[in-house]
Amino acid sequence: MDLEKLAQSIRTFEGVTRKKPIADIVRIFEAVRSEYEGSVVDFGDDAAVIDIGTDDVILFAADGIWGRIINKSPWWAGYTSVVVNVNDISAMGGRPLAMVNVMSSGDMQSTREIMEGIRDGIKKFGVPMVGGHMHPDTPYDSLAVAIIGIAKKDSVIRSDTARPDDVIIAAYDMDGRVGKNSPYSWDTTSFKEPAIVRERFMVMQEIGEKKLATAGKDISNPGTIGTLGMLCEVSKVGASVDLNSIPCPENVDFEQWLKIYPATGYILTARPENAGECIRVFEKAGIRASVIGTIEATRKLDILNGDCRATVFDFMKDEITGIDI
Amino acid sequence: MDLEKLAQSIRTFEGVTRKKPIADIVRIFEAVRSEYEGSVVDFGDDAAVIDIGTDDVILFAADGIWGRIINKSPWWAGYTSVVVNVNDISAMGGRPLAMVNVMSSGDMQSTREIMEGIRDGIKKFGVPMVGGHMHPDTPYDSLAVAIIGIAKKDSVIRSDTARPDDVIIAAYDMDGRVGKNSPYSWDTTSFKEPAIVRERFMVMQEIGEKKLATAGKDISNPGTIGTLGMLCEVSKVGASVDLNSIPCPENVDFEQWLKIYPATGYILTARPENAGECIRVFEKAGIRASVIGTIEATRKLDILNGDCRATVFDFMKDEITGIDI
Repeated sequence: MDLEKLAQSIRTFEGVTRKKPIADIVRIFEAVRSEYEGSVVDFGDDAAVIDIGTDDVILFAADGIWGRIINKSPWWAGYTSVVVNVNDISAMGGRPLAMVNVMSSGDMQSTREIMEGIRDGIKKFGVPMVGGHMHPDTPYDSLAVAIIGIAKKDSVIRSDTARPDDVIIAAYDMDGRVGKNSPYSWDTTSFKEPAIVRERFMVMQEIGEKKLATAGKDISNPGTIGTLGMLCEVSKVGASVDLNSIPCPENVDFEQWLKIYPATGYILTARPENAGECIRVFEKAGIRASVIGTIEATRKLDILNGDCRATVFDFMKDEITGIDI
Repeated sequence: MDLEKLAQSIRTFEGVTRKKPIADIVRIFEAVRSEYEGSVVDFGDDAAVIDIGTDDVILFAADGIWGRIINKSPWWAGYTSVVVNVNDISAMGGRPLAMVNVMSSGDMQSTREIMEGIRDGIKKFGVPMVGGHMHPDTPYDSLAVAIIGIAKKDSVIRSDTARPDDVIIAAYDMDGRVGKNSPYSWDTTSFKEPAIVRERFMVMQEIGEKKLATAGKDISNPGTIGTLGMLCEVSKVGASVDLNSIPCPENVDFEQWLKIYPATGYILTARPENAGECIRVFEKAGIRASVIGTIEATRKLDILNGDCRATVFDFMKDEITGIDI
């Protein structure tokens, strides 16, 4: 394994580089952010945390589906829009409550297939679609879904709270298949019973309520290392990752696996004394989890293979989202 | 005034006919709707109502901005996305809490202008944008925004609760300008101080908490009569509207006014004994309000001018959204 080449390949992976424009957007908002200081967790987390003056907080997130995926399979795009949104809430230790969508299409056939995908996602996850907006006359297809969830205020798992000497845990549902529409998607839900899927998605809620994690984030388009990179960036820390500790399905190429967006996959950090219990909670729900490294006070994310080490992100000069909370 | 011609012109107005595909979407979801019966107000209202087990409910809505508007003025599209979303919450008697957005663009200049419009909307209305998703590489520009708000459970103003013999009240901020980008938009906010704008948008909260309305809806793309039509459709009632009672700014053509989307404009229904107080609450906030007609047990929406009468919608055969809650 050529570590430098792998580090370079992850750093320049489109799933990672597409995150860059977020920083420019956040900067435009900076002038007005101070007004809301303290009331919300801002850009950079899977979901925003809204204080409603009770012991519960509302989680609020939105995701758009890449146009390329819609064109390849409208059904899958609709189904995936539910999966990624439910993930945003569950990754933070919350329970999803409801979704809304905005859809644009000029083609009744695509529209129908997208909606059928959403319907099947709703059936699978048990989260209702309660409203939305439809543009019936656009020359392109696009789909945006927003979701709200609820969590106990003291049980929310954020991504900007990892601390030096925390261990890093990667957790995946290994019972999956590489998606038909992209080598970088890993379907763990479409072929499973709703009860099993819901149990696996709710495991983060248990981890949040038991206070087993210091930080966490669902593994999304940037893949395992890219997602850990985003977590490190907003937590202002570095990390060392032992590649040999990362669980990988037998029939999947390792580099491909590192770039995959697993439908059910999380990066967590935990105090060393809680790592065992954290892994037990995952495994009890049928999710494979392992300690894969350590958070460090450096501002570098390094990958290790035996005695070899390579830097994937040096946050003193590299940006993923560039968000400086 | 040729009433039949006017009725026809409203019925076939694009702002009305674009609502039609909603019914097809809702039908696709029907199979899975029963699972959530009772927990939420569904498609057809400005916002969904989510029960969180307290005296408060969460309101949840989404709106997309018509591509045509984005291309004409990215700034205005961004600004408007805030206005229409805040409207969805305030129309139901709620207080907006936060927004998220999904944006697609391939052009950094449009992106910047859209975001600046959103930023200026945030400053105006005091509702933070707390997260979102960005597609930086699409061949088109699109913008979807979702919003959550909070309201007292017993003070929510729904649109499916109008009853026969209720009076109909139209309320508008008359201090406005026809928008630069469409003859059917009425800007009442961009040139006003935030404090005044926020006070006017919050008037529906007072009306909800004082239980002055039986139903209500913000006037949107379908215009005054089209919006009343949507309210009648989901309430399963009819209406008679006296055109001469509808307040209209001096320098705006009346037919154009009926089709306009006023930034601050509402249709309400109220028991006759509460109409006076309802109007007083509006006028105190600087919003012009008048009784413009009566809800009837028929399933027709008629417009009246002196002794002349014409039917705009006959819900026994016409559909606007076609939603049958």
